[in-house]
Order: sequence, then structure tokens, then C-alpha cells
Amino acid sequence: MQKPLLAITMGDPAGIGPEVIVGAWSDRGLHEVCRPVVVGHPEILRRAGSLLRESRTIVEIDSPAVAKPSMDVIPCVRAVPDDVVDIAPRNIDARGGQAAYDALVTATRWALNDEIDGLVTAPLNKAALVEAGHNYPGHTELLAEMCGVDQFAMMLYLAHDRGVRGASGLGVVHVTLHMALSEVVAHLDRPSVEAKVALAERAMRSLGCARPRIGVCALNPHAGEEGLFGDEERTIIAPAVEAAREAGLDAHGPFPTDTLMVRARDGEFDAVVAMYHDQGHIALKLIGMHRAVNVTLGLPIVRTSVAHGTAFDLAWQGRAESTGMVEAVTVAAQLATARRAGKASSVPH
Amino acid sequence: MQKPLLAITMGDPAGIGPEVIVGAWSDRGLHEVCRPVVVGHPEILRRAGSLLRESRTIVEIDSPAVAKPSMDVIPCVRAVPDDVVDIAPRNIDARGGQAAYDALVTATRWALNDEIDGLVTAPLNKAALVEAGHNYPGHTELLAEMCGVDQFAMMLYLAHDRGVRGASGLGVVHVTLHMALSEVVAHLDRPSVEAKVALAERAMRSLGCARPRIGVCALNPHAGEEGLFGDEERTIIAPAVEAAREAGLDAHGPFPTDTLMVRARDGEFDAVVAMYHDQGHIALKLIGMHRAVNVTLGLPIVRTSVAHGTAFDLAWQGRAESTGMVEAVTVAAQLATARRAGKASSVPH
Repeated sequence: MQKPLLAITMGDPAGIGPEVIVGAWSDRGLHEVCRPVVVGHPEILRRAGSLLRESRTIVEIDSPAVAKPSMDVIPCVRAVPDDVVDIAPRNIDARGGQAAYDALVTATRWALNDEIDGLVTAPLNKAALVEAGHNYPGHTELLAEMCGVDQFAMMLYLAHDRGVRGASGLGVVHVTLHMALSEVVAHLDRPSVEAKVALAERAMRSLGCARPRIGVCALNPHAGEEGLFGDEERTIIAPAVEAAREAGLDAHGPFPTDTLMVRARDGEFDAVVAMYHDQGHIALKLIGMHRAVNVTLGLPIVRTSVAHGTAFDLAWQGRAESTGMVEAVTVAAQLATARRAGKASSVPH
Repeated sequence: MQKPLLAITMGDPAGIGPEVIVGAWSDRGLHEVCRPVVVGHPEILRRAGSLLRESRTIVEIDSPAVAKPSMDVIPCVRAVPDDVVDIAPRNIDARGGQAAYDALVTATRWALNDEIDGLVTAPLNKAALVEAGHNYPGHTELLAEMCGVDQFAMMLYLAHDRGVRGASGLGVVHVTLHMALSEVVAHLDRPSVEAKVALAERAMRSLGCARPRIGVCALNPHAGEEGLFGDEERTIIAPAVEAAREAGLDAHGPFPTDTLMVRARDGEFDAVVAMYHDQGHIALKLIGMHRAVNVTLGLPIVRTSVAHGTAFDLAWQGRAESTGMVEAVTVAAQLATARRAGKASSVPH
């Protein structure tokens, strides 16, 4: 089977996206698991190469199908306006937001048309995206809209040995994501918790875990302390866990989140379902920081991302850490390979 | 200056309190920094000693003033009813809740009367406490009531080298604590955030930090993303940080909590002010687990506690980890010593 073809979107040209892409290109392991192609602007990539003193050749191509990537060659499809070359580094600029948007839309269409096996996104800047007239809380919501799905979730994933002991790593799936804390409770219900448990199970199977053990977070401190500090554990979360178990999933909880995260890190669970953004993010960033990979679950396509932002404070100084991009590409390759195998096995012989 | 005299309450006899006290007694460093005396029941301590095969002598005394603790001698004031000897291990029992309550009340009175320099509490079981007719969410709230204070806070503290890089360790102070997540927002206001920043500053000074750098958590993901996901950062937290800075404190934020916790662990801040229970607890338990010490701030007395619970699942099997108790006693000794020095320096010469 040929290695999966993955598109890496350049993200906002003013941020660290271009340099982490060029930096990640030096990782030999990455080329062993996939054929990467960049979607963005070749001139920006050339500048990132000069910045890092990397002698890669940037080859502009017309479509991902003709990409011939190697350690020395970065194939790039020009999918953004030429005015991006005028953007000042480290600045919020509508043109940067538009470029990130355009690259994402292009790569997503390719993925939906099976022209590529998955996409990996470099960070965009929310303010620049909004200035360009695209008002989305983040990549995830835009992708869900483009793919026409409403049951989706963000998973932060750390592979084995990136601070976690489980053989299949640890995935944390969020039931709610980009919303005010005050709105979280109103967005929790039994079906959405149950759906996220199912998404977690499926994702961890794709990542090589035969029977994922899933720990589900409580919403309240001490898991509500028998109803003393809130009753969402009894009314929403416990019934969702019960339903998941009845459906055959190895789900457990709800547990007090502070100790659940320690147990999960130490290998007792393969996935955790968190009720809100910070519950999952505080844990995974402390455990793995730059190595955490953002995986969008529930889409008909494979999509991963680095878990960090555009980091304007350190962009275009050659100081950005590329390990996150290497991890994101590696995980996308794993998921794309599993997806192909799944498709192949579902074809009648 | 004589070493501070510290009372250690036995907690719920059915839990791991008695054995972690006896276990901690073997720590030589503990005896170098304080004179510990136990408040509880000598027979329960004797059983814990047998369980751990420790040849300590339990000496029953009438008041902490006559305590002569050593590595070999555990002085114990009997402050709980004799029926505790009939309590079955690992069970919720009103008598266990009453015993934990009685020991706490006794030690708190001693501290308020300056008969001791501080108290360290072993865990109580909430359900047993309630069965005994004492309906408090935890030790902290009961202590605040006994001491007649309404501006208090729980700090989780990890000393230097317990997973944190800062020379003075890391303290995380909670603005809200034992309440449903849905109630948190209604309990946040500018004065309480500001008061908690001030409590964090004072506590870290007592722990040897000359000029504490205090990072303040946002409430919402991405610190509200410029108001897109909630506005409490702009309306409550940022003004509180500003006010603290005007009062001369080295306060910063609000910052997105997931990355703030990483920065604090890595030594950029000496204290963090968290908006709710799990925000602080997820972080400190992941970083230091059993070594985290619970410090009650804002009381007129010194009080620390282990950060774990009664752990009925592993109590009375000789498997409980005593390091948390050693840390809690050590931190209480530091705080009591600083408090005495403060008192001494405020006396006119």
C-alpha cells in the first residue's frame, strides 16, 4: 500500500506555521509514514527555509496528485493570493487570515474528493480570520461546517511515551469546546456525552487500541460529592456512561477530574472524555505541551493539527519548536492508514 | 527559637489518616523542623503502628504543652470518644465523622489560644461528617467558621523540586472552591479575585518568596478570545489584576489557564490564582499528586492538610503513601516559623 498523501496547510503566514512546516520536514520518520504536500504560498515557504538555513527545494505544483516529496523537496500548491508576500511577520492582518482560510478550504475539498488521504493544519490567527470576514471560533467548527456534520469533537492526543504510559497513548475528547464557561452546563446533555464517548472509542481504535478503556470526567468538583456540588453527574453523565456500556463500550465514570487525569496519564485509561475545553487542555498541555496533537473527530475526512497557536511573539525568529508538527503529521498518517484499511476491508471480495 | 509545636489531627479513623501519621513519623526531617503531637485516640494510633510494624511508643498526654515528641515517641491527646475503637475500617460511620470533627475542633481551639503554633489535618470523610450531623463541604469551610473569617481561600502548594522549578515552589489559590461548576460565575467578583491575589502574595512571602510573581487564570477558554467566549476576563479578572498591581503586587493576567499552568510549573510564576476547584486541582495533582499540600489562607492560625482523601479503598492495608503528610507537616512548620518571626518583628523593642 502506498504511503498516505497528506496536505499540510500553511496557516497564517505571519505566525510560526511556515517555519514549523519547514522544520518538521527534516524529520526522517515523517517521510517514512506519509507523502506530505504543502498548501499555501511557495514564496513564504522559501523565506521560512532561508530563516532556518535549510537547503530544501520548494517545488510549486498544480495539484497534490503530482507531488514528489522527499527530505530535500517540499512540493507546494499555491492556493492563496500573492499579496501574502507583503504581510509583516507577527501581525494581525486580514490577508493572513484569508490565506489561512483559503488553504484550509482547498485542502478540505481535496480530502472530501479523495484527492488526498488527510490534512494537517498549521495554526491560524483568530483575529486575522475574523478581519478577513470569516467568523469561526476555530478550524474545527469551520471544518465541521464544510463537511456538513454536527456531531463532531476535538480530541487532544499524546502518543505513547510523550508523557503518558498507555501503549496507545492518551486521547482527551471534549464534549463542549469554544464557549464561555457559563454556557457549558446548558450545552451538556446525555446524547452529546454518549456521542463523544463513541467518537473517543472509534478514534482510539484507529490509533491501534483494540479495546479502548474510556474514563469520563465529572463536571463538578469531587464528581459533585453525592449531589452536594451539582447534580449533572447523576442526571447527565452517569446515564450517558451507562448507555455507552450497554452499547458494548468499555466506559467508566464519571470520576473527579483531577485524579482521573493522573490515572489516565499513568496508563489506566486510553481515552478521557472531558466536559469542557480547559478540563482537557490543562491536563494534556501539562503532560505533553508541544507534543499534543489536535484531532478532529466525527468528520468524513482525516484532519489533525498542532495544538499550539500562531505564537506571534516568537514567529519568524527561527525559535519555533517543530515537534508538534511532526507529531500532528505522524498521527494523521496513522489515521489515514487505518481509514484506508477500514475502507478496503469493507469492500466485498 | 524553639521549633514550632504542631498538632496533627487524626482524621477519620476508618481511613488512611492514622497510618499516614505513623508513617510520616519515620521521616527524620520532619522532627528537625517541628515538635508534632497527635490529636485523636491513642488506641487507633497503636493499631496503625502495629499495621506498619513500627515500634513507636504512643504516649497519651493531657495537653500539647507537655508533649515530648521524638522519632520513637508519638505523643497523643485523646480528644475523641472511646467508641472510635469499634469502627470498622474503610466504612462510612457517623462515629468516624464525629471523631474527625472533635479532633479538628480541639486543635483549632488550641491554635486560636496560642497553645500550639499550627495544625495539620489528616483527611475526614464528608459523608461520615454529615452523618454525624456536621454539614460542611470540607475542613476549610468549618475552620473559616470557627475562626470567624469570611475572606479565606484554599491553596494547593508544591514545594521546590516536587515537579515545579520555582525556587519557592508553586502555590495555587482558588477563588471559588466547593460548589457546582454552574455556580462559579455567580460567585466571581472583582473584590474576591483581588482578595485571593493578596492572600496568595502573603502566603508565598511566608514560604520564603521575597516578591511573589502571581499569574491569574482566565475563566474561559483562550482567556475569552477577546470576548468571543465570555467577558468575565474583561469585566472581573483584568480589573482585579490591575487593582492588585496598583496596590504594589506583582500580578499578571488573566492568561489562558492551560498554558499558564505550564509556565507556572516551569518557574515563571510563584503563585497562580485559579477561578474554580478543578482548574487548580487538575494542574497540581498532575504535577505533584501526593506531594501537594492544602494550605488554608486567611485564617488567624496556621493550618495545612494532606491534599488526598480518606482513601477507604486502600486504608488499613499498610499501602498508604505518607509523603503527603510529611510535606503537609513541613509546610506548616515553615508557615508557623514565619508567623512567629512576623509577630516578633512587630513587637516594639
